[in-house]
Amino acid sequence: MKFHTKYLTINTTKHREYLNITSEVEATLYESGIREGMILVSAMHITAAVYVNDSESGLIQDIDDWLEELAPFRPDYRHHRTGETNGDSHLKSLLMHHEVIVPVTNGRLDFGPWQQIYYAEFDGQRPKRLIIKVMGE
Amino acid sequence: MKFHTKYLTINTTKHREYLNITSEVEATLYESGIREGMILVSAMHITAAVYVNDSESGLIQDIDDWLEELAPFRPDYRHHRTGETNGDSHLKSLLMHHEVIVPVTNGRLDFGPWQQIYYAEFDGQRPKRLIIKVMGE
Amino acid sequence: MKFHTKYLTINTTKHREYLNITSEVEATLYESGIREGMILVSAMHITAAVYVNDSESGLIQDIDDWLEELAPFRPDYRHHRTGETNGDSHLKSLLMHHEVIVPVTNGRLDFGPWQQIYYAEFDGQRPKRLIIKVMGE
Repeated sequence: MKFHTKYLTINTTKHREYLNITSEVEATLYESGIREGMILVSAMHITAAVYVNDSESGLIQDIDDWLEELAPFRPDYRHHRTGETNGDSHLKSLLMHHEVIVPVTNGRLDFGPWQQIYYAEFDGQRPKRLIIKVMGE
Repeated sequence: MKFHTKYLTINTTKHREYLNITSEVEATLYESGIREGMILVSAMHITAAVYVNDSESGLIQDIDDWLEELAPFRPDYRHHRTGETNGDSHLKSLLMHHEVIVPVTNGRLDFGPWQQIYYAEFDGQRPKRLIIKVMGE
Repeated sequence: MKFHTKYLTINTTKHREYLNITSEVEATLYESGIREGMILVSAMHITAAVYVNDSESGLIQDIDDWLEELAPFRPDYRHHRTGETNGDSHLKSLLMHHEVIVPVTNGRLDFGPWQQIYYAEFDGQRPKRLIIKVMGE
């Protein structure tokens, strides 16, 4: 069994931002030489998410609005007693989840036609890390 | 290490529908001959989900009502400028997630007493694909 | 490829409770001797969750309030016609998800600085099981 681990550092220009990282994940797969297996793509921070969905700018804005509705910024989260102001970023991360598993078959991401991998930043403008771990043969 | 990959095509009669696919996943495991490892069960579309929960018809209706409350159909999603009308289907998919990992021990799904695997369709009435990938020994 | 499977039984004193299980997962990893791979940590019940986020008591209370807002206790869930009263516990479990995959590199949980693994109980005060399955080399 082979393993290939890569770390990306992402520093968004905006507080919340959605980045298509599919090509970075594919590049990591090709480096690994793995033909069968899977890839874990996981945020290493607790105010970010990784998800699989559409590369369509209108939808991405819909997702952002929807997250702000279900997990809004508010001044009065208990977490803010620590001096933080990012309670909503944690809740958005929990709603979207911090990781995905991507299947690998015949040396390619075994995806349907519209599946793309996104990194969703909910507390950006500073360096945040992401792990891509390919496992298989 | 062994891999066994199977694709299911699902074409629901309703726009939203919840299908218990546990026996299909078990059949794929038995075909594989794998005794230890795990199974990735993942929707290949971005308007569907895969989740693990109860096989109880009242709860399934509760889940459907709840999803419609948290991620309702609305005419005015930005995504609809593309001509689509399924913005809510994408959000429901994100809320429920598109995949699960099932542990395999001694040749069986290593589940608790009530765990069942469901495919949740949020934009059906057309063929949609699902991947079941068994990995282990 | 090596596999090491451990089951924990958790019996919370409260109906809803959030337990940091990172050290139990680490202990299971060390027992396994596995240096590269991953760990599946999954609730074996359908009214509990496993998630990765911050070990900060204010945030944990924020998460609990937020879950009660998005998936509230209500007497009138259809699921309750079975005699159950825990419809909200199922919905909370679906929102938070029942499992995570933890990457393992150089014999350690390959986590960022604040990532901790939590078991979230939404229908406790009785024994509930959890599986920790380490897979790798």
